[in-house]
Amino acid sequence: MELINLHAFQVLKLLNNNEITSEDYVTELLKHINKREPLIGAWNYLNEDLILNSAKKLDEKRKISTGENLFGLPIGIKDIIDTYDMPTENGSKICIGRQPSKDAHLVKLLRKEGLIIFGKTVTTEFALSAPGKTKNPKDLECTPGGSSSGSAAAVGDNMIPLSIGSQTGGSVLRPASFNGIIGFKPTFGTISRTGMSPVSFRLDHPGIYARCIEDIELIASIILSYDESDYDMIKNYHFQNHSISNLKDFKFAFVKGPAWKYGDEDMKKIFENFIKSIDLRIDQIQLPSVFEKAVDSHITIMNGGIRSSLYKHYNENKSKLHPYTIERIENGSSLSASDYIDAIQNAKKMSLELKNVFSKYDAIITPAATGQAPRDLSTTGNAVFNGYWTMLGVPAISLPLLKGKDDLPIGAQVIAPWKEDNKLLSISKAIMNL
Amino acid sequence: MELINLHAFQVLKLLNNNEITSEDYVTELLKHINKREPLIGAWNYLNEDLILNSAKKLDEKRKISTGENLFGLPIGIKDIIDTYDMPTENGSKICIGRQPSKDAHLVKLLRKEGLIIFGKTVTTEFALSAPGKTKNPKDLECTPGGSSSGSAAAVGDNMIPLSIGSQTGGSVLRPASFNGIIGFKPTFGTISRTGMSPVSFRLDHPGIYARCIEDIELIASIILSYDESDYDMIKNYHFQNHSISNLKDFKFAFVKGPAWKYGDEDMKKIFENFIKSIDLRIDQIQLPSVFEKAVDSHITIMNGGIRSSLYKHYNENKSKLHPYTIERIENGSSLSASDYIDAIQNAKKMSLELKNVFSKYDAIITPAATGQAPRDLSTTGNAVFNGYWTMLGVPAISLPLLKGKDDLPIGAQVIAPWKEDNKLLSISKAIMNL
Repeated sequence: MELINLHAFQVLKLLNNNEITSEDYVTELLKHINKREPLIGAWNYLNEDLILNSAKKLDEKRKISTGENLFGLPIGIKDIIDTYDMPTENGSKICIGRQPSKDAHLVKLLRKEGLIIFGKTVTTEFALSAPGKTKNPKDLECTPGGSSSGSAAAVGDNMIPLSIGSQTGGSVLRPASFNGIIGFKPTFGTISRTGMSPVSFRLDHPGIYARCIEDIELIASIILSYDESDYDMIKNYHFQNHSISNLKDFKFAFVKGPAWKYGDEDMKKIFENFIKSIDLRIDQIQLPSVFEKAVDSHITIMNGGIRSSLYKHYNENKSKLHPYTIERIENGSSLSASDYIDAIQNAKKMSLELKNVFSKYDAIITPAATGQAPRDLSTTGNAVFNGYWTMLGVPAISLPLLKGKDDLPIGAQVIAPWKEDNKLLSISKAIMNL
Repeated sequence: MELINLHAFQVLKLLNNNEITSEDYVTELLKHINKREPLIGAWNYLNEDLILNSAKKLDEKRKISTGENLFGLPIGIKDIIDTYDMPTENGSKICIGRQPSKDAHLVKLLRKEGLIIFGKTVTTEFALSAPGKTKNPKDLECTPGGSSSGSAAAVGDNMIPLSIGSQTGGSVLRPASFNGIIGFKPTFGTISRTGMSPVSFRLDHPGIYARCIEDIELIASIILSYDESDYDMIKNYHFQNHSISNLKDFKFAFVKGPAWKYGDEDMKKIFENFIKSIDLRIDQIQLPSVFEKAVDSHITIMNGGIRSSLYKHYNENKSKLHPYTIERIENGSSLSASDYIDAIQNAKKMSLELKNVFSKYDAIITPAATGQAPRDLSTTGNAVFNGYWTMLGVPAISLPLLKGKDDLPIGAQVIAPWKEDNKLLSISKAIMNL
């Protein structure tokens, strides 16, 4: 098997057994990237010398270390997340050449473990809806999704085994669905946003891309870590990998939810057949009536946050912003505090009702997107299947289990109770092995 | 000593030793109330038959019970907190005769322990700033403070040993200061607001009045109890009384803070002399610069919440609302989501900075009000010394330690770290015994 097709955990075995060096591995990745990047456009910054130097240094470090470690494993970082040695341009003309002086907290954690910060992946403008240059590696006429467009496309095209994205609506899970990979957004407040450009503090979640659950767990165990500077973090949260013995011990709820009516007709058929055919204990259930306000509440909270986070740029550099970004900021400007507070209260009601659902079911299954990737590079698709779960802060993952009408991937979204990230990943691993 | 002057814990001893009955005790209280209530106006609802019947029933129950219990101990409840057997009128013409079908969660807890829900105490209109009928028992020309006017005045005048109030700005601590009693607002999210008329969900705290710390602890140990229906509650919080051995083991920070400039000149002098004379390890410190926004952030968060909670009444019954209430709702109406979110973010920054202060000091001491009770019944005074601590959700207490220029009481506000209610009360007990 070619090196570029391996999972990170498989590469690590080779590294730890001294069968390959990190330099060998990144050289193979770079060869593939040089061939594919002109077509895909996944990277906003990629410096071969920097990568090779890092790989060599970490190979040296590995030589003088004992035991297993992660030295020399590469990861891509969404370009709204600061890196001290690479520009971070937030997908915006306003930030061209912007060089942070410090790493974001999560980048610091990854470097500390010896990962190579491989490059910066393309994001939509300020992680909103104005697309970057990235195309979908499964079909170059299709959007890769957004806002974590490059992070998902790079992993989907085997340019890299691992990357970091972020989600305020559906910016981790939707691109995962469109690119046929795994995208994981853990419980709100488990990964620090210090050093990440904010969209809406109440909703912003960093997330992880990989092509297998083992790799997701590997990165989760590093970056799900408390940071006092991020005011919204959960204290005393400990992430641990674990495994389940029998998937039949778990009960699943198939939820169509308020997003269902926005789904493509072919996706709906395909998804209902998938639910019938999958070998799980699964009931179809209705969400409580308070969820009727779920889509609107999420949009309200998001728009309020966007206005608060991005107004400075609008005020100083409106002409450099994409019309989509301007529209989102202006929608936020016309929003009243009272409507925002009502949306927050609705979200709290939904969280409470969701607890009742999870008292009967271990996890929820619902589509990860409205359908396969739209054949349209001027959009990044619709996040409606993800937004309200993001708002509720529960852990969610997109698993590449379905194919759409053009044989393009569609993800199944699995959602677990708040703080049960371990369970979500172990269940997901078992589902992937079905 | 007369029964009415006793603390609740002292009355309990007499009850548990069968030296008096609850009927004896409430009869004495009612005699005193009948004399004083025409002057003070602390009660919005008081039904002698209901009280005497409850007392007799609980005396019977005590006869057939073993061990110590709280049967027959009376408590007053602020009239924004629902009671199934008494009207709850929220201090508003709109709610005259409003009879809830259920007890508020905290009332349920008190009844379960055998306390007598004695009556409903006067609140300002919807717990905002439009005064009720209550006068200050220490000087009938002075305001008792608000919004928990009747709760504080009733305890201050020995009509009752215990009562429940609530605080969104300074509505527990300021009336405590003005009435020369103890007012305690625990950590945000430790007492349920289910069945309490909301002012601003992000800020609303129920609180406890008594004339000694032992009595505060008695009620705290009952009502600091998790309720799933209140979305903002802290799970797995356990309140326990404890004692400290030596007050000299604790370090205090004297904070003037951004409220100081609003303080009366005589209060400032009196308070600074108090700090010099009190036998504590105490340093004067400056709050971090982010606290410059503390007063405004609190007002913004409060006004947003008021608009969200009370707009329905404004929309349907504006003519029945006091101009003060109308003004608050209208201030909230003109507030943008973005300004509200910025205030929330500022509050989070302050919480973080406050942790650093509390890494060096066990508690903060600052005035509980701008001065003694204003000689003006058209106002309830200024909450500026309380609002930002309320916003930060930290436990705070007003201790009746000072006297103003007219020999009227002024409280010292003591503030402890988030969730350290136990510590705050044990320190306060030691200070009261100095």
